[in-house]
Amino acid sequence: METGASPAQTQAVIAEVERCGFTPHPIIGAHLSVVAVVGKHPGQLKEHFESFDGVAKVQLIDQPYKLVAKAQREPSSFDCGGALVGGPTITVAAGPCAVENEEQILACAEVVKRSGATMLRGGAFKPRSSPYSFQGMGVEGLQLLAEARRRTGLAIVSEVMDPRNVEVCAEYCDMLQIGARNMQNFALLFEVGKCDRPVFLKRGLAATIDEFLNAAEYIASQGNDKIVLCERGIRTFETATRNTLDINAVPVLKRLTHLPVAIDPSHAVGDRDLVPPITWAAVAAGADMLMLEIHPNPSKAVSDGAQSLDFPAFEKLMAGLDQVPRYAY
Amino acid sequence: METGASPAQTQAVIAEVERCGFTPHPIIGAHLSVVAVVGKHPGQLKEHFESFDGVAKVQLIDQPYKLVAKAQREPSSFDCGGALVGGPTITVAAGPCAVENEEQILACAEVVKRSGATMLRGGAFKPRSSPYSFQGMGVEGLQLLAEARRRTGLAIVSEVMDPRNVEVCAEYCDMLQIGARNMQNFALLFEVGKCDRPVFLKRGLAATIDEFLNAAEYIASQGNDKIVLCERGIRTFETATRNTLDINAVPVLKRLTHLPVAIDPSHAVGDRDLVPPITWAAVAAGADMLMLEIHPNPSKAVSDGAQSLDFPAFEKLMAGLDQVPRYAY
Amino acid sequence: METGASPAQTQAVIAEVERCGFTPHPIIGAHLSVVAVVGKHPGQLKEHFESFDGVAKVQLIDQPYKLVAKAQREPSSFDCGGALVGGPTITVAAGPCAVENEEQILACAEVVKRSGATMLRGGAFKPRSSPYSFQGMGVEGLQLLAEARRRTGLAIVSEVMDPRNVEVCAEYCDMLQIGARNMQNFALLFEVGKCDRPVFLKRGLAATIDEFLNAAEYIASQGNDKIVLCERGIRTFETATRNTLDINAVPVLKRLTHLPVAIDPSHAVGDRDLVPPITWAAVAAGADMLMLEIHPNPSKAVSDGAQSLDFPAFEKLMAGLDQVPRYAY
Amino acid sequence: METGASPAQTQAVIAEVERCGFTPHPIIGAHLSVVAVVGKHPGQLKEHFESFDGVAKVQLIDQPYKLVAKAQREPSSFDCGGALVGGPTITVAAGPCAVENEEQILACAEVVKRSGATMLRGGAFKPRSSPYSFQGMGVEGLQLLAEARRRTGLAIVSEVMDPRNVEVCAEYCDMLQIGARNMQNFALLFEVGKCDRPVFLKRGLAATIDEFLNAAEYIASQGNDKIVLCERGIRTFETATRNTLDINAVPVLKRLTHLPVAIDPSHAVGDRDLVPPITWAAVAAGADMLMLEIHPNPSKAVSDGAQSLDFPAFEKLMAGLDQVPRYAY
Repeated sequence: METGASPAQTQAVIAEVERCGFTPHPIIGAHLSVVAVVGKHPGQLKEHFESFDGVAKVQLIDQPYKLVAKAQREPSSFDCGGALVGGPTITVAAGPCAVENEEQILACAEVVKRSGATMLRGGAFKPRSSPYSFQGMGVEGLQLLAEARRRTGLAIVSEVMDPRNVEVCAEYCDMLQIGARNMQNFALLFEVGKCDRPVFLKRGLAATIDEFLNAAEYIASQGNDKIVLCERGIRTFETATRNTLDINAVPVLKRLTHLPVAIDPSHAVGDRDLVPPITWAAVAAGADMLMLEIHPNPSKAVSDGAQSLDFPAFEKLMAGLDQVPRYAY
Repeated sequence: METGASPAQTQAVIAEVERCGFTPHPIIGAHLSVVAVVGKHPGQLKEHFESFDGVAKVQLIDQPYKLVAKAQREPSSFDCGGALVGGPTITVAAGPCAVENEEQILACAEVVKRSGATMLRGGAFKPRSSPYSFQGMGVEGLQLLAEARRRTGLAIVSEVMDPRNVEVCAEYCDMLQIGARNMQNFALLFEVGKCDRPVFLKRGLAATIDEFLNAAEYIASQGNDKIVLCERGIRTFETATRNTLDINAVPVLKRLTHLPVAIDPSHAVGDRDLVPPITWAAVAAGADMLMLEIHPNPSKAVSDGAQSLDFPAFEKLMAGLDQVPRYAY
Repeated sequence: METGASPAQTQAVIAEVERCGFTPHPIIGAHLSVVAVVGKHPGQLKEHFESFDGVAKVQLIDQPYKLVAKAQREPSSFDCGGALVGGPTITVAAGPCAVENEEQILACAEVVKRSGATMLRGGAFKPRSSPYSFQGMGVEGLQLLAEARRRTGLAIVSEVMDPRNVEVCAEYCDMLQIGARNMQNFALLFEVGKCDRPVFLKRGLAATIDEFLNAAEYIASQGNDKIVLCERGIRTFETATRNTLDINAVPVLKRLTHLPVAIDPSHAVGDRDLVPPITWAAVAAGADMLMLEIHPNPSKAVSDGAQSLDFPAFEKLMAGLDQVPRYAY
Repeated sequence: METGASPAQTQAVIAEVERCGFTPHPIIGAHLSVVAVVGKHPGQLKEHFESFDGVAKVQLIDQPYKLVAKAQREPSSFDCGGALVGGPTITVAAGPCAVENEEQILACAEVVKRSGATMLRGGAFKPRSSPYSFQGMGVEGLQLLAEARRRTGLAIVSEVMDPRNVEVCAEYCDMLQIGARNMQNFALLFEVGKCDRPVFLKRGLAATIDEFLNAAEYIASQGNDKIVLCERGIRTFETATRNTLDINAVPVLKRLTHLPVAIDPSHAVGDRDLVPPITWAAVAAGADMLMLEIHPNPSKAVSDGAQSLDFPAFEKLMAGLDQVPRYAY
């Protein structure tokens, strides 16, 4: 729509899209509104819609992903349980890899709150390589996260692994995380696409940028376009670090999509001593959000202790983060 | 158990395992029987069980995967809808990437049958990178596969992607396929582990051998140890072929597990002209099973046409396969 | 040239190519002769040469590599110190990773000869990751190889790493090996391109097929087109084996180039127990040549002992190789 | 040596090392001096040297690389034709991929000088995938670089590819670059190790950190320990960018070695629009040096135009760089 198009003009376009047999996906920005439509394009529709009042341009999107494509859209931002994602300042989610017990998660929540971060992460359903490893506390873990939110006001993000659990996870969480192993679990993507919680989508270990955006499109195609794309390290030949952070993904994604981009330095390196400089790099590269693992006693963590910051290291990192400027896109 | 241990002796061991609070997984081979037990090992149990009649040895398994570990077990073989997998001759499953219509799948089934292969593959639920690509015919596709089985006697293998569909897929299929993207979809692995259909588990694009075996262990841990491990190409820097077939995986897996090993040359190369020599290599390396994509008219296939053999090429390949010996492990 | 073109006709084309200011690279096959020319193509030359007697067709080659491109050429084959490479039967080169002393190399040569292989490999100049590792016996090692040749009649292949050593290596060796780390050492490629010894070019650890063929073109561009392309495993995320054998490279190379293709199973897997099945796969896929590491006492080898076959294992492998058919291209 | 050890005490240790038959590598820092010794360690030498005056500790280094290992050494810094590398501020080298003519290189030199950078890069000997691509101006290119230095005072860095050219390159350049393809060209590493010019060593496309450090050790083992380690992107499955910048390499290298670390954002991304945010990330991660490609008219560059910044973009990037803090190790 044109800058300055009236709500009525936009509504008229939406109605006409429906009349033509398509599903409209209106994206109403502060300055710019877009009515996205997915479908086979019969030649004459472009002219038809361009003749509507308030329509600036009908743009065909070549990429296979349509709703998440940048096209000429403003960058997305959205509220997530009180935390703003995609806004002028970086959003930080921190917490333990797994919720282990009430004491642990409340201690984490307290330090997260004190540090100035706005979101608490914590795994209740844990994807583990071995069936004999701790699989998480399940719903009980979600309840502990909700209790932490009640006490601190932090928004909650936790992973969902099974389409049958989307409903219960959405009940407790402000944001639903899709883990790297499930980036192309299409049944799960469809399910979170149908719920109204923002989604934190992690890039698969060997997923191309193109596949990553198409996975986001799976979610968006069901009506939920509040999606954060998280680069968390890809799998390469290098074994000096757990994964290889693809920092290039930040500017590449910023060029291709309007969605906010996050970095998870903890998984990307797998070693807590390397987390602070990589966090600086993530911010400087222009990430919209960070996800950090912390633990009151990393050496006793049930999972991923090696990459978890202890509280003093986390607070020091947060205190210094203000001095690192974000690259502006 | 010792060679020649009596059924009663084996039964006594199984009963004692249960009495000690563990779940026994008996594996009764023609020559060698094993009672596998997963759990934390209290020091004295080894001596306790070694004192039982007919027990040859109590062996502790260091790997995180226990039930699928080779240990000293015989190679597994099992029936799958009349087709033997893991036996003295190679098992071939062939068919189209996706079931498209009755005519197409029946034509494929006929040529598969005529070629001497014993299994028909065909996708009813299709994992596609884009939500706007054809997602498969669903249950209707399964019904067409069942009809093809009725007419030819071929066993049916098809992919299941959603834990909620395991039941319906098991109703129609003789073997359930888990695709590469779902290799670590743990909810799905648990679900197929609880059903009684053999499972065809494809290696993830960036999965290590270790993660592959642990994924199989997820299935086995639920009671279903009829699992075929399929190498179908990994993702590397090389773009001359769709994927890079990790032929090394065959001898590596043969050393680490008792499960049968399959190769999918079609996905591994992504180009039909390269499929025949790669199929020869797979057989020579000692694979137990092959999965091949064919189509009556590859250029019109709704998916993966470039890698599908047409019927004459498939029949020629099958006719020459007898001359290629399998490496014996 | 046309089938049946006379030597005089071919000579006339060669002369005209020179007259036009280009360097002709004539390739005289038993059935088919080609005069290859590299250079910017002025439009009218195609018609000009097509009007010559005996010229079947002037074919423009789009690929960046011209002289090694398959175009419509017959597969290359050439003599290498009495061993035929690219002929109807597979060529086997075997020997130790490094020449260690006279006794060791003579013992290897004897078993290689007895097994029916025709070439002896052995490193005199060794590329080692650390400057403090054994760097090879140098010229003395070459002299020991020459002595082994004198006694057995085997052709000798050894690695050259420094352009300043090409001359001395060519003096002692029947074939010069370029190692994986030097695949794009262009100064070295130019130098071996100027000498008259066949070259055994190993694919770089992370080299694409395209880069591999361009590296061969560097050699051919200097006048030496007796080149064997050796796939020896690429570097991927998988650590279960030392490298990942890209078996797909065999049919891909056979499609793109007329040069013979070799496989080095020893480096590709890095574990002697896995070498035999991988060797079978290499033969079945249609390789023209094999390179195998053997050692009288692998556990005492100064380098690469883990992947070296001992003599009984090597002889057993060679004895069984006849039963494995080669895929015919 | 102890903090405060006298020159005479250090000299006495050096003399004793020589007397024992080893080659001492003294590293005299402002606060801390080290006498490095490479060799097999006879048990009693540790006690022997610890008894010397001024010796704080005899530390055995387990890694295969000794001279470049961090151990307890101060970070290295050294002068390079007037430019300080490894000092308190970041060193920037910029210039064209290839020297093309006098006008081009002088124009680049001028803008580099004006921007505040202290080094001029430019390729005279170019490693190109195809033998038919422009191979660089050779010595004439070096002479143009020297002329640019004469006019601007910038230090010069250029690549050397052939051990036979090290001498002439050292005559013209203040720093010798070893390209990624030659990282394990050991003959070349030895040769630059024998000359007195600082070396800019680029990480190989598929080189591990461990191999990278061992390559540096090759140079250091010959007496030249003025080495900058440059991460320039590794080869992975991702094709959205030319290479994948391994930003993790910065903190990993800082932990393992005392050598300065550089980043080459231009090669790491291969797309000029992505260079600025990646440059920011490199600085924030704590790199000691940057190498950037610029060109007066990128679309007409003979090589790597796509990744070269034009002058306004370069000047804008340099002007904003001050605001990005470097992570301090």
